Amino acid sequence: MTSSRPRPATIGDIARRAGVSTAAVSYVLNDAPGGARIPEETRERVRAAADEMGYVPGAGARSLRTGARDLVLYVRSDAAQGPLASEFLHGLSRALRGLGYTLMQYGAERDRGLEAARAWAALRPAAVLADDDRLTRAGVELLAKGGVPVVGLGSDPERARGTGLSTLVMDHRAIGRAAGRHLAGRGYRDLAAVLPAGPPLRAMGGERVEGVREAAAEAGAAVRVHDMAYSPESAAEVVAGWREEGLPRGVFGYNDEFSGLLLGALLDAGVRVPEEVGLVGADDLVLCRMLRPALSSVRMDGESSSATALRIAEVIAGGAEVHLSPWTPVPVRRAT
Amino acid sequence: MTSSRPRPATIGDIARRAGVSTAAVSYVLNDAPGGARIPEETRERVRAAADEMGYVPGAGARSLRTGARDLVLYVRSDAAQGPLASEFLHGLSRALRGLGYTLMQYGAERDRGLEAARAWAALRPAAVLADDDRLTRAGVELLAKGGVPVVGLGSDPERARGTGLSTLVMDHRAIGRAAGRHLAGRGYRDLAAVLPAGPPLRAMGGERVEGVREAAAEAGAAVRVHDMAYSPESAAEVVAGWREEGLPRGVFGYNDEFSGLLLGALLDAGVRVPEEVGLVGADDLVLCRMLRPALSSVRMDGESSSATALRIAEVIAGGAEVHLSPWTPVPVRRAT
Repeated sequence: MTSSRPRPATIGDIARRAGVSTAAVSYVLNDAPGGARIPEETRERVRAAADEMGYVPGAGARSLRTGARDLVLYVRSDAAQGPLASEFLHGLSRALRGLGYTLMQYGAERDRGLEAARAWAALRPAAVLADDDRLTRAGVELLAKGGVPVVGLGSDPERARGTGLSTLVMDHRAIGRAAGRHLAGRGYRDLAAVLPAGPPLRAMGGERVEGVREAAAEAGAAVRVHDMAYSPESAAEVVAGWREEGLPRGVFGYNDEFSGLLLGALLDAGVRVPEEVGLVGADDLVLCRMLRPALSSVRMDGESSSATALRIAEVIAGGAEVHLSPWTPVPVRRAT
Repeated sequence: MTSSRPRPATIGDIARRAGVSTAAVSYVLNDAPGGARIPEETRERVRAAADEMGYVPGAGARSLRTGARDLVLYVRSDAAQGPLASEFLHGLSRALRGLGYTLMQYGAERDRGLEAARAWAALRPAAVLADDDRLTRAGVELLAKGGVPVVGLGSDPERARGTGLSTLVMDHRAIGRAAGRHLAGRGYRDLAAVLPAGPPLRAMGGERVEGVREAAAEAGAAVRVHDMAYSPESAAEVVAGWREEGLPRGVFGYNDEFSGLLLGALLDAGVRVPEEVGLVGADDLVLCRMLRPALSSVRMDGESSSATALRIAEVIAGGAEVHLSPWTPVPVRRAT
């Protein structure tokens, strides 16, 4: 069976229908100065043909003509988005829109490195934002050759400095430090921290744990660290271990969601929260206010998405390397 | 200050550097049969120049050449994604990738209708998926003229039938019916259902409430309906109202997250759950197993994302209108 499916109309199609040259079509549709002598009647015929055929210039062709390249590509790793990332991207998308850019995202589960960078470059974006694990130096260089600046989300600013790669990071060590100081400030000296098992959360978790250790060292407190998967079963195992070896007094549960699972497991084990064990999450999701007792957390205060978008727009416009870390962790006290 | 920023290399640039015609460059880089007589030495010079200059053909140009159009565009409304949608899209993206398509999404807070459809068409996608509120009939027609099939997410299949618009819907009435039957099956005859205040959830919520009404009618039960915003304060108001007018025996909280807020407010008011008030959510998120008592819910069973992707790939390949509703709601009993 052959397909009778239409294809996008070209200026050649319009020229044939209107009985003029393709150059004339191009002059008329682009309102180009060179076409000033084309009679109005011909112009109308061309415009009518374009309308009838649903003509839309391809973005590639339009970019070559005007030099405008307004697509900002965000290449995500394979993880489904958490609520915080989803909200930030929503705000960033809105702010970039206000500056004339369109943020498009796609989840690239396997794509990384040079081959992937080629595919991104083919879309002729104004800039590429990418989760750090999608990037290699060769890929960043290929994009730079084509004038496409790259912002690595979560990329190490120290390693990036001078390579042309801009970075946008959340300071996970500072989050852990804020949580640890909050627990130490409640007088707790026997702390525990949870480390998510497996990528992509493990690297961030490791940084957060380091922050808890720093806060504990300041206060003369001890920290036990426990691997945990994002499941009720794994939370129950962590709590069972605590009941054998002795309950910690204060727990940092990596984020609100892991902490929510720990809270359920603690209550199931008959542990009183916060009287026996205090618990603090991170992200300050609405979830904290669903749980009973309500969950203490660490909120990320900072520049609005629009301020961050402006900084990213500077990268796009100027091509200069910048290193952004626009968030400051602030403890939010609830039950603990 | 003039920008010294590079632009993507063209075949003209490569031709100049290699000292050959642009036609020769095109033959070599495309491995075209017409270039069979070009000496290997020249071929190597062209390839070297292309590598040095970081040449990447634009996706638009490549599409025109091969007829391959592998971009599937997903146009989202303004709401940040919930966890269920995020997971589904992740699976769909992976499955489409396996079929040679790249799913790209962008949040179009204001874009809808004909003008928006023009911008989408300019990207020369293989297909457009769009949340129903982004679509108008004129926009769908414009895309169809260019051979771009459109799948409306949440679009009414009855209204779409015969217009060329394919649809992918979740049957919200069936979700409400499953929740209502679950509550009625526990023997409850005094039911309440929550309706999210404001778009985009309100339309779905209305369908779910209708489903609860159907189940209640079957069982001879009554249903009260209450507006609620997604906030602890609004949940507390709903519960305060119940305490004045008498507690319902069974509550459908629209989804797991609204139900989580209601559970917190019920416990704060000293109401015993499920002994005094039973509660059921929808989506069966991990959240259900964080809450205590654990939240009953409605899970969406159905075709895997890859099966749904195959059906969407059929639309892309064949252009035929299809109407998909691949999920079946199944109650999950926990505390209630």
